[in-house]
Amino acid sequence: MRLRIDVALDYRFAEPADVLLAVEVAQLPDQRLISDLLTVGGAGPLRPIIGEDGIGRRTWFRAEGTLQARYEAEVEVERPAPDISTLPIAALRDLPAEVVPYLWPSRYCEADRFDAFVERRFGALEGGARILAMAEWIRAEIDYVRGSSNSATTAADAFVARQGVCRDHAHLMATFARAAGIPARLVSAYAHKLEPPDFPALVEVWLGDSWQLVDATALAPLEGAVRNCVGRDATDIAFMSIFGTAELVEQNVAVQRLD
Amino acid sequence: MRLRIDVALDYRFAEPADVLLAVEVAQLPDQRLISDLLTVGGAGPLRPIIGEDGIGRRTWFRAEGTLQARYEAEVEVERPAPDISTLPIAALRDLPAEVVPYLWPSRYCEADRFDAFVERRFGALEGGARILAMAEWIRAEIDYVRGSSNSATTAADAFVARQGVCRDHAHLMATFARAAGIPARLVSAYAHKLEPPDFPALVEVWLGDSWQLVDATALAPLEGAVRNCVGRDATDIAFMSIFGTAELVEQNVAVQRLD
Amino acid sequence: MRLRIDVALDYRFAEPADVLLAVEVAQLPDQRLISDLLTVGGAGPLRPIIGEDGIGRRTWFRAEGTLQARYEAEVEVERPAPDISTLPIAALRDLPAEVVPYLWPSRYCEADRFDAFVERRFGALEGGARILAMAEWIRAEIDYVRGSSNSATTAADAFVARQGVCRDHAHLMATFARAAGIPARLVSAYAHKLEPPDFPALVEVWLGDSWQLVDATALAPLEGAVRNCVGRDATDIAFMSIFGTAELVEQNVAVQRLD
Amino acid sequence: MRLRIDVALDYRFAEPADVLLAVEVAQLPDQRLISDLLTVGGAGPLRPIIGEDGIGRRTWFRAEGTLQARYEAEVEVERPAPDISTLPIAALRDLPAEVVPYLWPSRYCEADRFDAFVERRFGALEGGARILAMAEWIRAEIDYVRGSSNSATTAADAFVARQGVCRDHAHLMATFARAAGIPARLVSAYAHKLEPPDFPALVEVWLGDSWQLVDATALAPLEGAVRNCVGRDATDIAFMSIFGTAELVEQNVAVQRLD
Repeated sequence: MRLRIDVALDYRFAEPADVLLAVEVAQLPDQRLISDLLTVGGAGPLRPIIGEDGIGRRTWFRAEGTLQARYEAEVEVERPAPDISTLPIAALRDLPAEVVPYLWPSRYCEADRFDAFVERRFGALEGGARILAMAEWIRAEIDYVRGSSNSATTAADAFVARQGVCRDHAHLMATFARAAGIPARLVSAYAHKLEPPDFPALVEVWLGDSWQLVDATALAPLEGAVRNCVGRDATDIAFMSIFGTAELVEQNVAVQRLD
Repeated sequence: MRLRIDVALDYRFAEPADVLLAVEVAQLPDQRLISDLLTVGGAGPLRPIIGEDGIGRRTWFRAEGTLQARYEAEVEVERPAPDISTLPIAALRDLPAEVVPYLWPSRYCEADRFDAFVERRFGALEGGARILAMAEWIRAEIDYVRGSSNSATTAADAFVARQGVCRDHAHLMATFARAAGIPARLVSAYAHKLEPPDFPALVEVWLGDSWQLVDATALAPLEGAVRNCVGRDATDIAFMSIFGTAELVEQNVAVQRLD
Repeated sequence: MRLRIDVALDYRFAEPADVLLAVEVAQLPDQRLISDLLTVGGAGPLRPIIGEDGIGRRTWFRAEGTLQARYEAEVEVERPAPDISTLPIAALRDLPAEVVPYLWPSRYCEADRFDAFVERRFGALEGGARILAMAEWIRAEIDYVRGSSNSATTAADAFVARQGVCRDHAHLMATFARAAGIPARLVSAYAHKLEPPDFPALVEVWLGDSWQLVDATALAPLEGAVRNCVGRDATDIAFMSIFGTAELVEQNVAVQRLD
Repeated sequence: MRLRIDVALDYRFAEPADVLLAVEVAQLPDQRLISDLLTVGGAGPLRPIIGEDGIGRRTWFRAEGTLQARYEAEVEVERPAPDISTLPIAALRDLPAEVVPYLWPSRYCEADRFDAFVERRFGALEGGARILAMAEWIRAEIDYVRGSSNSATTAADAFVARQGVCRDHAHLMATFARAAGIPARLVSAYAHKLEPPDFPALVEVWLGDSWQLVDATALAPLEGAVRNCVGRDATDIAFMSIFGTAELVEQNVAVQRLD
């Protein structure tokens, strides 16, 4: 599937502030980046850095006045609908060093508080089937309610409230997986057929000896997901981190199928 | 300063469990590891992996019955008492990729909640002096009270309670630094002259273009600190992570000066 | 059922402290207090005050050195096993003034966070059947695990952890009821056949036009429960509130059937 | 000072819901209610009930469609600027039964978490001077920032964030007082010269043998405050509790001096 992505971010900065942008598509085996271009008006020099785990790129700059960031990319996604149900859960003692950090609880994923629940609800299932049951539980029990959570909402908060947005669904998915001893990381992405278009948060879990995409919201098919960055939770993968204050003028994401 | 470190960890496992041990001294410019030996009785094969940020080693194994882990090391520490007060705070847009994760809040360091306090209390100070003022504030305002916190206590909890142990002091230090836009990571360590001997948690902050040790507890001089592992907060640097349940039989840490 | 209650509380006070004791059996239609006696050694003059909602008595005094509080009571309990399943839920606009405070969230009962869960899980049931379903859910989903909670644990904490002691079961019961618009208060009690004997926390909910006992733990039959005090949550009904620090020497509660 | 109060509350109810209104001025020694009138359009019969602690009135009704509540009152306030600095703190063991509930922590006032801070910061002061120091600390350290808190924000949250609105200032005041063993309750009020006019939350503390008004925000002089209702925290004293959902159409409060 060939996709064209267009992003426009317009913000106004009353005072200069440093910004970390993470909108660029990662070059990965199942998503071939054909071309892309990032242009930023109203900013100092762009300083690209690599993303977490070597995946994707991010860009530092100093914004002042009116920021106009534009990103366009063309990408070929070839990702067969994955069947993870029969993939095995790796023994903890076999986990590689780079995967270990994704076992731990993080700011918005208090995995340490969910041991008993996860064991009770999902403990009887083996392998990837356990992950799929978690995703199904989240879709069934946590209503998608726009405005029901904010930037301080954690997985435990959403678990109690039974409401959230895609960020909260992803946090719960990662939390449940980690509580079951399965490494899990968040992934910022673009998604074809997502309504309204946005930067949805997906989750990757470590099954067998590789990362596997999971979507706890089922808002858009994983086949059309294009990944940018990975991290422990929503903070790490924010599409734009502003170290100061800014006012949103306009923001637009478009994902269009070309073939 | 030449130090000899002896660690004995005896635990009983009613059921087999995977364990990640992080007691080994890191080889670093300011601490030369001369020799060390880790032996583990009551465990399956040892699988060493590298620590976070490439610092130190950790060891995976499966424990069953009575676990007897012994670690001995000889290390030469040459670390002049650092004067960080005049080191500059790096501009955010100059931060290298590997340092960025230490800007974000983590499970026990809710840096995102402390913006206003940190700006109000420490915002007028420049460079390393700001960090030193934070450490001083923590030593003055947070009493060291054994048993006042547990494994679920966060920096915000300790900030309200005004009590904690070294783990909480370190969490507050990292939280304040991150809230000020200064990357900070936790460091597990051995410390000469620490009473009682333990695995104290220290903090490293990114000043100028390097990591600098800070101690928010002042329980033992930094000159005699020997570092093992680094991470975002206490979970990442635990000296032993048990994925299951175990009973502590005996645990001992000794740090002895040889010269 | 005629019951004899014996309570012995021995505490040591390094420094004098005010104490509020709430161990006395309330005189109520379904529990006739035949005789009782409170004696307190190691304390200044006793100052009895009435309990919340006019139920039971509490006693203020100043403790110093070794406190020896003894309470003995004989009480006739005549409380037919209640069938609350068909009692109606009162319309909110018909609630009397004295019942209104028990609609609100309290320190350990964050009823305001449970609206969606309670509506989703129990919303289809009418009247007392809704309350019974809540109690059944709590018994089925929250394991009784000694030591799993502490004095800071809230209903939401126990809901996430899926573990607690009778205090937590009672907090969840009151929380669910209030979230459903049903006033609920905690009740401290003695209970025949409770193993080990203790001061269990029960719950009363407002159905129709009266308070009805509910037990979310089913540790002891409600027929043999003897009530002391009521309040919004565990703090209000503590059997002893010490305004200072004291060391527990020995504490014993015995409930014996006389007929 | 003679004041005229006019309140207009217009809300739209998509579905019928029970409502508890608490806008009526309490008849009290220092504020003589001369006349008042509550009219409610778009509601079923009004059922007045007394307020907490016998102070003020509240009104239950069922709202449907468009609710138009109007309240007008004329009240003579004669409240000399109180000097509480020399009033004594009552010994705990002398506290009357009706005051005891205001010692406990509540949903938004986690007084149990602030013992050490309150002792450290205010412990050296005696009597009402301790209360005044608490109010001064709150005004100095907690910025009034519109929109910085929401209905879930607790005293501990505001303490960490160092920001809040009058509700948060009042919660902190009550929290500090209770942590110092001084009963404290919240008071909903009207206030002359408050900009913009609103239902500000004040605090009353128990000093000597009576309740004394305190204002931790200093937004409007206490001399012109007209009290409605009291309670443990913001939930208890909400001017309107809607048990369901409603849309705000317009809401207006005017307080005008007549003499």
